[in-house]
Amino acid sequence: MARKAHAAGVALRPHVKTHQSAVIAGWFREHGVTSITVSSVEMARRFSEAGWSDITVAFPMNVLEIDSLNALAVRVNLGLTLDAETTVAALADRLERPVGVWIEVDTGYGRSGVPWIAIDRLLALARAVEAAPNLELRGILTHSGETYQAESADAIVEIHTRAAFRMDAIRRELTEDRSLRTVRVSIGDTPGCTLAGDFAGVDEIRPGNFVFHDVMQWRLGTCRDEDIAVAVACPVVGKYDDRIVIYGGAVHLSRDSITDERGHRRFGYLATLEENGLGRAVLEAPVVGLSQEHGVVRLERPLLDALEIGDVVCVLPVHACLTCDLHPGYRGFDGSVIARLSSSRS
Amino acid sequence: MARKAHAAGVALRPHVKTHQSAVIAGWFREHGVTSITVSSVEMARRFSEAGWSDITVAFPMNVLEIDSLNALAVRVNLGLTLDAETTVAALADRLERPVGVWIEVDTGYGRSGVPWIAIDRLLALARAVEAAPNLELRGILTHSGETYQAESADAIVEIHTRAAFRMDAIRRELTEDRSLRTVRVSIGDTPGCTLAGDFAGVDEIRPGNFVFHDVMQWRLGTCRDEDIAVAVACPVVGKYDDRIVIYGGAVHLSRDSITDERGHRRFGYLATLEENGLGRAVLEAPVVGLSQEHGVVRLERPLLDALEIGDVVCVLPVHACLTCDLHPGYRGFDGSVIARLSSSRS
Repeated sequence: MARKAHAAGVALRPHVKTHQSAVIAGWFREHGVTSITVSSVEMARRFSEAGWSDITVAFPMNVLEIDSLNALAVRVNLGLTLDAETTVAALADRLERPVGVWIEVDTGYGRSGVPWIAIDRLLALARAVEAAPNLELRGILTHSGETYQAESADAIVEIHTRAAFRMDAIRRELTEDRSLRTVRVSIGDTPGCTLAGDFAGVDEIRPGNFVFHDVMQWRLGTCRDEDIAVAVACPVVGKYDDRIVIYGGAVHLSRDSITDERGHRRFGYLATLEENGLGRAVLEAPVVGLSQEHGVVRLERPLLDALEIGDVVCVLPVHACLTCDLHPGYRGFDGSVIARLSSSRS
Repeated sequence: MARKAHAAGVALRPHVKTHQSAVIAGWFREHGVTSITVSSVEMARRFSEAGWSDITVAFPMNVLEIDSLNALAVRVNLGLTLDAETTVAALADRLERPVGVWIEVDTGYGRSGVPWIAIDRLLALARAVEAAPNLELRGILTHSGETYQAESADAIVEIHTRAAFRMDAIRRELTEDRSLRTVRVSIGDTPGCTLAGDFAGVDEIRPGNFVFHDVMQWRLGTCRDEDIAVAVACPVVGKYDDRIVIYGGAVHLSRDSITDERGHRRFGYLATLEENGLGRAVLEAPVVGLSQEHGVVRLERPLLDALEIGDVVCVLPVHACLTCDLHPGYRGFDGSVIARLSSSRS
């Protein structure tokens, strides 16, 4: 991803919410990355303590956290995300330090952001940001989360291209107003950033999930199954005629799921183990059910015969971000222990 | 539940995995409860440190945790759950202290346990337990989790009655063998224990969720919406024409969902707030989408007009056990702070 961003002349500001680890963020530094994206003010605080000083919080600013923001802005080059004049007013009122602002644009996902066609509202918001003390307009930001609903790789590229085109069009509208500074364009999402052939009209990309990938990315065509770099190690605690039960439930894997090509809901797949790590997904060994602590893996002979109570299996997660958020850290196949900086909730 | 158990002459051994709090477990003591159910050896350890000395781990014994079990059995009257001779053999080999054993029976759920019709296997397993050093047969245990798929309250009662009948039949078969001690019958699940008219054939019940209830229980007819006693307080961070976005996503609510009567997937509902706490579910304010940290609540006017960025809304969870597992504790409407003992993963 760093090579691709460099070749395209765009900045890579990876999202660290997937791994939430200072060690793994450090691997990005080795590839020239100096800025990161987080999804909460608390996550920004922990990464600033780990030495990161250029951080964008790509989540709609929660005005109840302005005190934490003031504390953080003392030592961090901070970027916020917002889409409402109410938020600008609250910040103008109570912010004590300069922070950068990204105006969130909804280019089609339908979650947060000002709808991309509402140019007048975007312009008014940009002017309000510029007029507010301590707020500095950085640019416009979008997350094309609708790529996760796409039916094909072509559809993902189409969504990406459309979003980049819409963002660039808004930038041109905004910069026609000479009172506005340079407006940068920031886009996110791993599927789009991975599959896109180019980043025309874009200044910065913020993918996160690609650090591990997962079953959902594999199903989308963003990666191969052997590219998935994280799994949950689960002891086998029950063995039956058509399944095993593992010590790995909703509190360990999360309840995110995919629907396979036959219409069945899947919560993960067992992975093969190769000499130096995770191998491939075993399509014949899907996680078909999750309780709080139990996972049910459908299995037939001879795969079933090879497993016994007390063995440990590795489960490839459907959505790595949610699964990793449930664990205190990672263990490498070389025995290394990699801590996470924080739980999102602590 | 304590009154109902007392009137029926059955023991109440509530499952504490829902709340995982020593304070809340203490409320049960005030109702005469002296024994609890947990879902992991680690949870047993933390509750033993909080003063509980009679604990059943209602999860298939993970033989990789025998060392922790030995440490715990020094000070706790411990009950284990198992359904395989492999597990009995591993315990016989390495267990250093006496522990009680519950043989898990599958009365129809299809997750773990020996199928209820496999009487010969159940008898062989009971004898293996009795013959093993340090293992003491307590009885047979089931969890009728299929009540959560039931279409009506009548169907739940039917599942409960059938499970109790099957367990009692197995007990009679087992105790015909005079070498076996008294075989007790333990059943679980909040829907069945709440709606059942009687507990014929049962010695002990292990419901847990009823301490809070949730949207799923409400939909099943186990409780009313105003009985739901826990919610996640979420700041409003975005307001749009047809929705609000809240700071409350999959990492705060969990991704468990229900399908409403019109076929829509729902991840929770806003609750009204009354003078002294949570009020009723607002059906017109469903959580329709969850990202890692974002929740999307569909809302129309005039409800929408009453909410602004910076307000805090309360979301009734679909599955309280999973939601509570994501938080470090609870805050009462009287300002009290109630800690959880542990994360399942720490």
